[in-house]
Amino acid sequence: MGSSIITLTTDFGLRDSYVAEMKGVILSINPQATIVDVSHEIKKFDIRMGAYVLASTVPWFPRDTVHVGVVDPGVGRGRRSVIVRTERGCFVGPDNGLFALAVKNSGKTEVYRISNPKLVSSRVSSTFHGRDVFAPAAAYLAKGTPLPEFGPRMSRIRTPPFAGVIARKNTFLGKVVHVDDFGNIITNLSAAELGALKDKGSVAIRMGNAELRLKLCRVYGDVEEQEPLAIVGSHGFLEISVNRGNAAEVFSVSVGNDVAVRRQQRTRP
Amino acid sequence: MGSSIITLTTDFGLRDSYVAEMKGVILSINPQATIVDVSHEIKKFDIRMGAYVLASTVPWFPRDTVHVGVVDPGVGRGRRSVIVRTERGCFVGPDNGLFALAVKNSGKTEVYRISNPKLVSSRVSSTFHGRDVFAPAAAYLAKGTPLPEFGPRMSRIRTPPFAGVIARKNTFLGKVVHVDDFGNIITNLSAAELGALKDKGSVAIRMGNAELRLKLCRVYGDVEEQEPLAIVGSHGFLEISVNRGNAAEVFSVSVGNDVAVRRQQRTRP
Amino acid sequence: MGSSIITLTTDFGLRDSYVAEMKGVILSINPQATIVDVSHEIKKFDIRMGAYVLASTVPWFPRDTVHVGVVDPGVGRGRRSVIVRTERGCFVGPDNGLFALAVKNSGKTEVYRISNPKLVSSRVSSTFHGRDVFAPAAAYLAKGTPLPEFGPRMSRIRTPPFAGVIARKNTFLGKVVHVDDFGNIITNLSAAELGALKDKGSVAIRMGNAELRLKLCRVYGDVEEQEPLAIVGSHGFLEISVNRGNAAEVFSVSVGNDVAVRRQQRTRP
Repeated sequence: MGSSIITLTTDFGLRDSYVAEMKGVILSINPQATIVDVSHEIKKFDIRMGAYVLASTVPWFPRDTVHVGVVDPGVGRGRRSVIVRTERGCFVGPDNGLFALAVKNSGKTEVYRISNPKLVSSRVSSTFHGRDVFAPAAAYLAKGTPLPEFGPRMSRIRTPPFAGVIARKNTFLGKVVHVDDFGNIITNLSAAELGALKDKGSVAIRMGNAELRLKLCRVYGDVEEQEPLAIVGSHGFLEISVNRGNAAEVFSVSVGNDVAVRRQQRTRP
Repeated sequence: MGSSIITLTTDFGLRDSYVAEMKGVILSINPQATIVDVSHEIKKFDIRMGAYVLASTVPWFPRDTVHVGVVDPGVGRGRRSVIVRTERGCFVGPDNGLFALAVKNSGKTEVYRISNPKLVSSRVSSTFHGRDVFAPAAAYLAKGTPLPEFGPRMSRIRTPPFAGVIARKNTFLGKVVHVDDFGNIITNLSAAELGALKDKGSVAIRMGNAELRLKLCRVYGDVEEQEPLAIVGSHGFLEISVNRGNAAEVFSVSVGNDVAVRRQQRTRP
Repeated sequence: MGSSIITLTTDFGLRDSYVAEMKGVILSINPQATIVDVSHEIKKFDIRMGAYVLASTVPWFPRDTVHVGVVDPGVGRGRRSVIVRTERGCFVGPDNGLFALAVKNSGKTEVYRISNPKLVSSRVSSTFHGRDVFAPAAAYLAKGTPLPEFGPRMSRIRTPPFAGVIARKNTFLGKVVHVDDFGNIITNLSAAELGALKDKGSVAIRMGNAELRLKLCRVYGDVEEQEPLAIVGSHGFLEISVNRGNAAEVFSVSVGNDVAVRRQQRTRP
C-alpha cells in the first residue's frame, strides 16, 4: 500500500472528544495511518462550506490519500454511506453532496456503498456514523481492503446545485461559497471563467446592496491598508478582500450571498 | 512495546505554545510516539468536564494507550502527580478527580505516584507540570518504563462526588455533565439506569424551571427541525437535543445544572 | 537524517484548509515527516506575538527540528523568504522579524535565502507562500537537502525593536508581549533581569493607569482565588496573573502595552 494518509473534515468543533474517538477507531484498525486534520470548524450542517474546504484541500495531497468528510445533518435517516474513488484520492462519508466539488475536478470516479457489517463498528450508533462507519471504513481502505468488499457499486453520488455558475451576456453570476478566517470573501467564480477580465485592471462587482469597482490585484499589498481589492486567490477563485482588514465585515457579506461580476464595455478614446 | 499512542486532554486552549511544548518534550524522549489531541478546549479548571471528555474517549483507543490529562487548578500546591494503569489504558496527570469517570469503567486499577526525578524534567517549574512532569512521564511509560520505577504505589485515586447518580422511587436525579459544541445537553444518566423508560416513547424531564415531555428518539431527525427531543447519545447517556438547533441555548442550561427524569405512571384505559 | 520533526506556527486559524494544504505539500515531499502544530491562532498579522510563541516553543524540541513560521502581512511584496540554521533548530519563513526572539537564544546562526525554483512549488501563488514556498522548503530541509542548495547566503535576518528591554536606574521598562488563553499577562522582562527582585516578596508594577503592588509568587495558589499576583512564568518572563481568574480582563491590558517594574527602596528600620 501507499501513503496511508487519512484526512478528516467535520463540523464537530474541537471542544469535544468526537474527533479523537474517530482517531482512536482508525488507529485501532490501522496503526500505521498518518491522520491529518483539515478542519473541524465547518459551520454546523453546512454541506456547501464543507464541500468547498474539501475541494481546496485535495490537490495538495498524494493521490492515494483517503479523505473522510462528516457534515451529516441526515445521519441515521437513510442517506447512504459511500466511498468514492477518483484519480486524486478516495472520499469516505455521507452521500449528501459533501464530495461534489472535490470529485468534479478529480477525474474518473467509482462509487461504492458502505454496507458490509464486517468493515464498520460492531455496534453502529444512530447518531455518530463518523466514528462507527466512516472511520473504520477509511482505516480499512487505507490498509488496502478492495473497494468491492465494502458494498455494492452505485452509479453516481448526489450533486447539489451549489457547484454551478451561470454566465449571462455581460455578467458572471455566482455565490459566496466561503468566508475564510481572514474575512476574505471567496466566490465560486473561477479564474478560467473570468479570464477575459484579467488584463482589465479592475472589475465591477455587485454584492447585496454594494456596487463596487475594485482593482484586480496580484497581491493584497497592491492597495493601501484597509482598502478593498479583487484578487484571484490561491485556489483559483475570485475573492474580494481588504488589505490587512476583514472584507466580510466591511461589506456585511456571508456565505450563500449572490455575487455578480460585470464585464466592462470598451469605451472608444 | 505496543502502540505507543499518547493522547492529550487539557484546558490550555490552542492559541499558545503550551500544548506544543508538551509534544516537544514527548518526542524528544520517545520519537516513535503517535500523539493524538483529544481536546484542549476543556473549560478552564473544569475537572468535571475534563473527566467526562476523557471517559468518552478511552473506549475507542487501543488498550495500551497512554492518556495524559491536565486540568490542574492545584498545580504546585501539593496535589499528587499519578499514573493509573487500568485494563483499558494508562492515565497520567494530577490526582484531582480528572480520571475518576474513565477509571470507573476500565476494570482493575493500579496507582503509582510520579516522584522519580530521573523520569521528569531536570528543572520542574511550579506552574507547568503538563510539560515538566506529565509529558516526560507519559513518554517514558509509552516507551516501556516499568511502573514501579516512577514512584511508590498508592492505594487509590481521589474520586469526587460528580461520578454518582441518585435514583429515587419514581425519579432519576442527575447532572448536566457536558454541553457539546452542537449544544447537546449531556447528562450523567446512563442508558442502563434509564432502561425502563426505553419503550415508553417519551420522557418527562425537569431542568431548571423547564418541565418538558420529550419524545425519546433514535435519531435527531425523528422530530421536525428546531424541535426538542431526548436521545440516548453515542456514549450511552441521556441527552436533550434540538434537531439542527442548539438545545443548551434554547433551554438556558449549562454544565452542573440538575436534571430530573420522572418515570411515567401508567394510567388505566 | 535526524528526527524529521516539522513544526507549524501561523495566523491562519483552524476553520480553513490552509494548514492542511501545507501538510499535504510536506507529506507529498517527505512522507516520513512528523508534523506538530504549535499554534494557528496567532493574532492576524501580529509578528510580535508569533515571535514570542515561537521562542517559547523552540527549547522543548530536538535540535534538528525544522520550525516553519507564517505570519506574513507582506507576502508577495518583496520581503525575502529565508532559512535560518541555529544550534537549537532551523527556521523557515518570511524575513520580517518572526524569528528574531527564537534566534536570539539559539546560538550561532546561518541565514540562507530561499530562491531555488526546484525546491518550491512549480506554481508559486502570490498570496500563499506558506503552502508554495515554506512548506516545500521545510520538507526538503527535513529530508536532508543541504542549505546552500536553497539559495545564496545572507548576512543576517531582520531584527525589529520588540526584542529589547530598557532598564533605568530603579525601573525596568518592558512591554506586554503576549496574553495567553488563561488571561495571563506575559511581559518581556526576564527573570534574569529581575533577579534582584526575587527575594523581595513583592513587586511594584505600573500598567496603563494601574499602580499595583503584587506578591511575587512561586505558584498561582500562593494567593486567594481571584487575587492578583506576579510570577516568573514557565518561560522565564515576569507574568501578571489572577489566581483562577483572567488578569488581562481584570486590568484591561493587551499586547503592546507598556509595563514598568520599580525596584523597592530599602527603608531603614
